[in-house]
Amino acid sequence: MEKKVVALTGMPGSGKSLVAEVAMEMGFSVVVMGDVIREETERRGLKITPENMGAVMLRLREEYGATVVAERCISKIQAGTGSKVLVDGVRSIAEVDEFRRHFPNFVLVAIHSSPETRFQRIYQRRRTDDPQSWKEFVERDLRELQVGVGAAIAMADYMLINETTPTQLRKAAKNLLRKVILHGSNCCEGGS
Amino acid sequence: MEKKVVALTGMPGSGKSLVAEVAMEMGFSVVVMGDVIREETERRGLKITPENMGAVMLRLREEYGATVVAERCISKIQAGTGSKVLVDGVRSIAEVDEFRRHFPNFVLVAIHSSPETRFQRIYQRRRTDDPQSWKEFVERDLRELQVGVGAAIAMADYMLINETTPTQLRKAAKNLLRKVILHGSNCCEGGS
Repeated sequence: MEKKVVALTGMPGSGKSLVAEVAMEMGFSVVVMGDVIREETERRGLKITPENMGAVMLRLREEYGATVVAERCISKIQAGTGSKVLVDGVRSIAEVDEFRRHFPNFVLVAIHSSPETRFQRIYQRRRTDDPQSWKEFVERDLRELQVGVGAAIAMADYMLINETTPTQLRKAAKNLLRKVILHGSNCCEGGS
Repeated sequence: MEKKVVALTGMPGSGKSLVAEVAMEMGFSVVVMGDVIREETERRGLKITPENMGAVMLRLREEYGATVVAERCISKIQAGTGSKVLVDGVRSIAEVDEFRRHFPNFVLVAIHSSPETRFQRIYQRRRTDDPQSWKEFVERDLRELQVGVGAAIAMADYMLINETTPTQLRKAAKNLLRKVILHGSNCCEGGS
């Protein structure tokens, strides 16, 4: 049977890992793209910090090409036995194309929260006029956008909005994943 | 009184002009960023086609910098008398920053439809496996993404989803614009 692969994209703090949690409860295997970065950061003897992982993410792509992280995830998916797989953390159209090339049953889901909401979540209700945290937050966003996460979001087959509570997101994610399993993607039959 | 500026971003065929129509009915002045491109395409003696306008959009930015279109729109807004303005067609974070610098009451709204839905709308129910139309569609998307529209979408204060009917979108747009007028942006007080 063809594997069903659902990939998740979104900015930091938008709620991707909660959707991954829901997917796991629904019997999906979950592959976290950030784990590849984490493994590589450790392999390079660096401490696991957002800055180091951000830098390794950019360097890995410079050294091995735009799809290196996707390729390592594709190997993991192919080696696994799961027929439904959720990939957490797609960051560019190049990665989307790479997944689509390997898995015809591929669906791209984006999750959106406003910058203000994401900031509040990441910094747990810290004041938005604390310049140091805001600066860190904006730099992290820009690193992600530099890789191309914005384009992946723009090209999503489905968009989840996460502005209210975790309970609401869990419900929306469950409905969406159920729909995706039943009907598949309605998208992009002519290419990608 | 400070002008209230709401900017709209989204991929081709996502429904921006319908939202602009709703805004106009609600008493907003509407400034269409594409009109700057259209004027410049005519000024250069070129026919108004998607390809020519796409090329002029890229060339204008190369010649005068990433914010040239935003700057021309800002002049139009400042010259106008409207206190509520909707700007249709923001395409990058550089443009967003430029607007925010001039208008403290700035709100960024994105509108999303899946590639499949946008394709069907633009080509009026043509089959997605017609390779020629699909190729044109993908090329147009890539031109927009090259300018950075994905990053603008990713950083939106509000996200509208437009997968169903024009009536639904009109309703959602009306509610959102009403909310924005009353409450303004809850975003990015610490900078942009």
